Amino acid sequence: MPLQRHHVRRVVANALEEDAAFNDATTLATIGDSQVQATAQLVAKQPGIIAGIQVAEESFRALDPNAAFTPHLTDGDPVEPGSNIATIDGSAAAILSAERTALNLLQRMSGIATLTAKYVEETKGTNATIVDTRKTAPGLRILDKYSVLTGGGGNHRMSLADCILIKDNHIATMQQQGKTIGDIVRHARANAPFSIKIEIEVENIADAIDAMNAGADIVMLDNMTPDDMRQAVQQRTGTALLEASGGINLDTVHQIAQTGVDIISVGQLTHSVPGLDISLDFTVQ
Amino acid sequence: MPLQRHHVRRVVANALEEDAAFNDATTLATIGDSQVQATAQLVAKQPGIIAGIQVAEESFRALDPNAAFTPHLTDGDPVEPGSNIATIDGSAAAILSAERTALNLLQRMSGIATLTAKYVEETKGTNATIVDTRKTAPGLRILDKYSVLTGGGGNHRMSLADCILIKDNHIATMQQQGKTIGDIVRHARANAPFSIKIEIEVENIADAIDAMNAGADIVMLDNMTPDDMRQAVQQRTGTALLEASGGINLDTVHQIAQTGVDIISVGQLTHSVPGLDISLDFTVQ
Amino acid sequence: MPLQRHHVRRVVANALEEDAAFNDATTLATIGDSQVQATAQLVAKQPGIIAGIQVAEESFRALDPNAAFTPHLTDGDPVEPGSNIATIDGSAAAILSAERTALNLLQRMSGIATLTAKYVEETKGTNATIVDTRKTAPGLRILDKYSVLTGGGGNHRMSLADCILIKDNHIATMQQQGKTIGDIVRHARANAPFSIKIEIEVENIADAIDAMNAGADIVMLDNMTPDDMRQAVQQRTGTALLEASGGINLDTVHQIAQTGVDIISVGQLTHSVPGLDISLDFTVQ
Amino acid sequence: MPLQRHHVRRVVANALEEDAAFNDATTLATIGDSQVQATAQLVAKQPGIIAGIQVAEESFRALDPNAAFTPHLTDGDPVEPGSNIATIDGSAAAILSAERTALNLLQRMSGIATLTAKYVEETKGTNATIVDTRKTAPGLRILDKYSVLTGGGGNHRMSLADCILIKDNHIATMQQQGKTIGDIVRHARANAPFSIKIEIEVENIADAIDAMNAGADIVMLDNMTPDDMRQAVQQRTGTALLEASGGINLDTVHQIAQTGVDIISVGQLTHSVPGLDISLDFTVQ
Amino acid sequence: MPLQRHHVRRVVANALEEDAAFNDATTLATIGDSQVQATAQLVAKQPGIIAGIQVAEESFRALDPNAAFTPHLTDGDPVEPGSNIATIDGSAAAILSAERTALNLLQRMSGIATLTAKYVEETKGTNATIVDTRKTAPGLRILDKYSVLTGGGGNHRMSLADCILIKDNHIATMQQQGKTIGDIVRHARANAPFSIKIEIEVENIADAIDAMNAGADIVMLDNMTPDDMRQAVQQRTGTALLEASGGINLDTVHQIAQTGVDIISVGQLTHSVPGLDISLDFTVQ
Amino acid sequence: MPLQRHHVRRVVANALEEDAAFNDATTLATIGDSQVQATAQLVAKQPGIIAGIQVAEESFRALDPNAAFTPHLTDGDPVEPGSNIATIDGSAAAILSAERTALNLLQRMSGIATLTAKYVEETKGTNATIVDTRKTAPGLRILDKYSVLTGGGGNHRMSLADCILIKDNHIATMQQQGKTIGDIVRHARANAPFSIKIEIEVENIADAIDAMNAGADIVMLDNMTPDDMRQAVQQRTGTALLEASGGINLDTVHQIAQTGVDIISVGQLTHSVPGLDISLDFTVQ
Repeated sequence: MPLQRHHVRRVVANALEEDAAFNDATTLATIGDSQVQATAQLVAKQPGIIAGIQVAEESFRALDPNAAFTPHLTDGDPVEPGSNIATIDGSAAAILSAERTALNLLQRMSGIATLTAKYVEETKGTNATIVDTRKTAPGLRILDKYSVLTGGGGNHRMSLADCILIKDNHIATMQQQGKTIGDIVRHARANAPFSIKIEIEVENIADAIDAMNAGADIVMLDNMTPDDMRQAVQQRTGTALLEASGGINLDTVHQIAQTGVDIISVGQLTHSVPGLDISLDFTVQ
Repeated sequence: MPLQRHHVRRVVANALEEDAAFNDATTLATIGDSQVQATAQLVAKQPGIIAGIQVAEESFRALDPNAAFTPHLTDGDPVEPGSNIATIDGSAAAILSAERTALNLLQRMSGIATLTAKYVEETKGTNATIVDTRKTAPGLRILDKYSVLTGGGGNHRMSLADCILIKDNHIATMQQQGKTIGDIVRHARANAPFSIKIEIEVENIADAIDAMNAGADIVMLDNMTPDDMRQAVQQRTGTALLEASGGINLDTVHQIAQTGVDIISVGQLTHSVPGLDISLDFTVQ
Repeated sequence: MPLQRHHVRRVVANALEEDAAFNDATTLATIGDSQVQATAQLVAKQPGIIAGIQVAEESFRALDPNAAFTPHLTDGDPVEPGSNIATIDGSAAAILSAERTALNLLQRMSGIATLTAKYVEETKGTNATIVDTRKTAPGLRILDKYSVLTGGGGNHRMSLADCILIKDNHIATMQQQGKTIGDIVRHARANAPFSIKIEIEVENIADAIDAMNAGADIVMLDNMTPDDMRQAVQQRTGTALLEASGGINLDTVHQIAQTGVDIISVGQLTHSVPGLDISLDFTVQ
Repeated sequence: MPLQRHHVRRVVANALEEDAAFNDATTLATIGDSQVQATAQLVAKQPGIIAGIQVAEESFRALDPNAAFTPHLTDGDPVEPGSNIATIDGSAAAILSAERTALNLLQRMSGIATLTAKYVEETKGTNATIVDTRKTAPGLRILDKYSVLTGGGGNHRMSLADCILIKDNHIATMQQQGKTIGDIVRHARANAPFSIKIEIEVENIADAIDAMNAGADIVMLDNMTPDDMRQAVQQRTGTALLEASGGINLDTVHQIAQTGVDIISVGQLTHSVPGLDISLDFTVQ
Repeated sequence: MPLQRHHVRRVVANALEEDAAFNDATTLATIGDSQVQATAQLVAKQPGIIAGIQVAEESFRALDPNAAFTPHLTDGDPVEPGSNIATIDGSAAAILSAERTALNLLQRMSGIATLTAKYVEETKGTNATIVDTRKTAPGLRILDKYSVLTGGGGNHRMSLADCILIKDNHIATMQQQGKTIGDIVRHARANAPFSIKIEIEVENIADAIDAMNAGADIVMLDNMTPDDMRQAVQQRTGTALLEASGGINLDTVHQIAQTGVDIISVGQLTHSVPGLDISLDFTVQ
Repeated sequence: MPLQRHHVRRVVANALEEDAAFNDATTLATIGDSQVQATAQLVAKQPGIIAGIQVAEESFRALDPNAAFTPHLTDGDPVEPGSNIATIDGSAAAILSAERTALNLLQRMSGIATLTAKYVEETKGTNATIVDTRKTAPGLRILDKYSVLTGGGGNHRMSLADCILIKDNHIATMQQQGKTIGDIVRHARANAPFSIKIEIEVENIADAIDAMNAGADIVMLDNMTPDDMRQAVQQRTGTALLEASGGINLDTVHQIAQTGVDIISVGQLTHSVPGLDISLDFTVQ
């Protein structure tokens, strides 16, 4: 998923407006209207994976359309402390007014990519794919999910519209009407658009098998033990994919990946993001 | 800063749209159009401080204007695992379609309030106020800053427009023209709107004194040692406020607060937010 | 898919603004500001299926929040010439200013539902589901697709994001790299989000079988003869669904449905919509 | 009315967003990020009149600002099956992601122009002008009305604000107060902005004459017989224009045009548009 | 033209946002979150005509939906110093945060109505109508033009779309091609939508007559002397209206109205508006 | 405060849309689609200070991106009748369609700059700065305040968020609780963000001194006599700034400036703006 320019522009324009970058009192009272030109470097201060270079570019160029933005890396590249990510040559005032917007987005996105890469590293040698959830910052889902891809992960659904995921509360509602897990899958299949997949959350092996037999495309093994997950994998029928979910962290992900599940979803990737430390080094020309 | 309804509505409407909550394939294929009513409880799973109850209410009521939303707590209240935050009675379908939007916002906001409260706790018995920065999630600044207030902190400026904060790069640009820290403060005063304050970042005691003598309203002591901060406090002149800044964390904040600084700004409050774990317990009526 | 009020409101507000309903010169120069109340009936002039009653209600109530709107039918109900769809009691001026917006939407939506129902009728006794395409009026996709559901059809994907549909031009691009239909399906599977389905368009039986063997979730039989479609059905492997597509009309749909295909997609449902004739009968109180 | 670029951009941007063109799962999973370039031809499959070339250009260039778009025809030109309308050279991925948006708009607009031209053809040798109504697709009125112009027709009012058109329901309201057709025209004249015209709908010759005598600028002869229309033309007084309206179709329009009316309004031009069949032929470079 | 609520809401919401009324630092730091209730009176400080009461109501109720707003006057009513326009009972904080937005709009609108009424007074006993121009504050045209109506004036066209007004520069362009004033009117008639009027600006009597003979609906007598205007009136042919325009002020308008012109357009009504002095008297309950 | 392009574009786009500049009936019916090129000059007709040249440029270039816009002056320059402000070479149609939008904005902005300059002239030789208020036209605050700067004035706060200004009604509310002016300042200081200033309005010298002693950053002397203002200046303590406010006009401002106050705020600068007369001279090429 390359980022679409129209979307990036809108996010950046809104962020600059929220920050009143058109009215940066500090820059106006110091550098003022002067035509001072500057060179700025975006430099990593921590090891990680970079994501969002295009977003940074758009931030600076929104305020100085004539600025030259030269990326030295590509999204997905690893960085070490001191790695030079990109160089901006342009109006000193514009660079300083856009700095926080550029960094807020770049640090969040790179933080997500970096954390994703750590999880992916733990699954090496297994078939498991690390994926995100819908636990993203409202307004930033597309950037958040792009960052997961950049870190080597995959994406779970973008929104409520593109995959059916029958969770505990849906199940509880249907069970009140006497339906089993298998019944619920069949009911959903009969009522769902033919073009989207059906996933269902289960909490034990019997339900997992019931779901697979009923034709679920994906079965989410929620908070099950690695042993139970392994059993579910062994008893897999048809083409159903198995997704591990529920409180998975960097300590447990390796063991879970070894159970043979296809997918491991990790809410933490986007809901509790430690930003990657990146600074803007600045030299007046 | 109570949240303004117009703003909350816009954030919630955008978040619901981003999540395609108007087209929740899962709910449609399971519960469907049925008029099933449900009762849901928002329940804390971790200790912390709650923030954003009004945002949760708006999320559910956007999809079911007839839902009854009964808060059991008020923003700023402490929660323990099991604390019941609010009850929603309404359409089962609407509750399930709005759940993720409500939780994404409520968890982020409560996470910020909770982290803020931990910092505030560390400063007890001192005069220091914990404040945020502009390192917020783009699009969510107002909610982020409200959550800091809810956690007992204060707000630094909302945007680039409402306070002058002369940072290293502005200083470097002015120093090229032979200006001292004091000169820069005086230059800014002469060029700034009379109605906003002037803050300047300094890295040593001499510069701090120079800034205070030149009439800076606030002096940011950037990455200085506690000893140097204490000296700056002792040599304070006029009415200048002193702000500690730079890589402050929960381990160091107490020691810094004891130096006598007025303000301690902590970027982490909003840029790397661990969401507070909150779940939605759901019962079909 | 019940219509979400937030979406309906936005479409209606934009339509009223496009029509300058806030500045209806005719009503102002005749009825004027007077408080004349009126009763209006929405009456069908043609047989068909009604869709969009909620949209009509929103149109009238946007201009007169105190108007009473009483529906006599429910979306999906059949109408005959003379059927009374709904009654509006309210400001005569508001009713007349909103009339065209209400009818433009209601007639288009009911036209789609009516046409869909005719196709559905032709498939009775078969397993085939009639579905729409993305050939909708820009800005009205959600209403268009809702109307297809109302007419008894199903929905193909809402947008480019929620199902993979590999069409002739994608295939041509991949074939240049020496890939077969099966290769292309496997390539897409390896690169696609795990949570969405993969459909591919084929033009002959051999390619259809290649696609099914490679694990395509849906195979679109494009412009194939009924005989070839029947063969493809007989040779179906796995769980793949078969979709008939390409220039299907009311004369040919029955024969195609009898081939045993699962899905028949009809662009005409939304791209060339004959509006259902509906009038507003008006009586001053 | 040449199309204004600002408006075209907004319609296209909204349509691309509605179609999630920034997240085209199919293109991403097949062609992916590769820099494959392609050449595409927009080719007519039916005879007709082309309209909307600029809209197609904007669609492709929104996704690939570097694409070259070369029109071979001009809006208003006739096409035959096989006519090459325009060539696009650019990113294969961008072309495929924008294809449906471009075609949805181009086919609707050309369909309107084509249908308009058929009506215009039937009025050759008479003074009658074929015009549209406000029965347009909400959100697309400007494009719909532009397409009518392109097909050789004229435009009736753009919105409720730019001409007074007193219809049956306005008349019924005023007649309750004892007003005649002439009284109503005079009342409207006294209350209307001086700068806009006044049209009134009548159903018989006596009312038509009453309206003309009262100074109506335009008199709409609603559902009158050709003989009655001819009589109204013969008894025309002053500078009033006469407009025929009501259920006019391609079979009846010639006879109506020969009555001598000035204007013939046809709702079908925009409310029940058969899209013109146009395809995108695609070759990888 | 009664104000449409949808429009008023949007203008008010934007104005409150521009003023950061959701973040009124003063009210927060003084009254704070307290539930203090207050009663406020909108009181005129100058004689004039009131306009915009609904806009004031919307401003206060946007911030306190439970506030009671009781109008004591109706738009168009005269006020004297001390006249009580409306009473608001509601949250003290909301009233103070909305005060400036409400007054900015109410004072401008009442200023326009008041100035219009002065011009209208000067034309008493003549047939002339005072009308506005398109010299309005961008974004506020609908409110500006409503205020002119409220002051007893009429409206010239709302936008470039609803009347043709051929001005000096259009004429100069056409004269280059050898066209006379009459030719230009005829050319415009042949190319204009049939449903809108044609006005042309002339600078002498000969051109005025030429325009009337060519069938202009309105002739604008630009900067002509009263004597020349009187002559133009005497030589009027057909149904053309005559509009006086150009630098007309309160000293000259009476004399111009007596020439017999139908319309007098005054740019000053909206381009240089002296706001009417209105204050908010406030009592804590 | 240089104007930010993003903001200017949005204001101009909205203004052009409000004026239906995409559908200029006059230009279409006269010049039409022809490719006539023209040269236009923006020429001052009154002496004054020019402001808004960039806004005029954006207006013309929005309709003709290929137009050449050559400014001959810079914002802030004085003009005399006949001064040539800028030259536009481009499409005759685009120039005429954008003319009113460009002039509406340029005349308002220059009117504000001109009026500001007159006030500034009256304060020569004193320390007083002339500043604006929040009495701006809703939607145009940024342009209005920029124009004040251009005329040599300063800006008071941009919105309710960036400075505390405790006015009569806030004071009345707090006095009910037994608080003095000094108490109120101290209460606000304890509850306000540390980074913004606190101003309070007083009506007599005793309150002014109380406010200064309590640490107010700015004291507004509301409607006080020049003698009282002079006394307040003489008794000033600390670093408080003194602002004169209340019904100040060109006749009284000089005397007030001589009292020694620091700031004089003048609502008239933006609430009752006489536009500067500027015309567009037009020559077909």
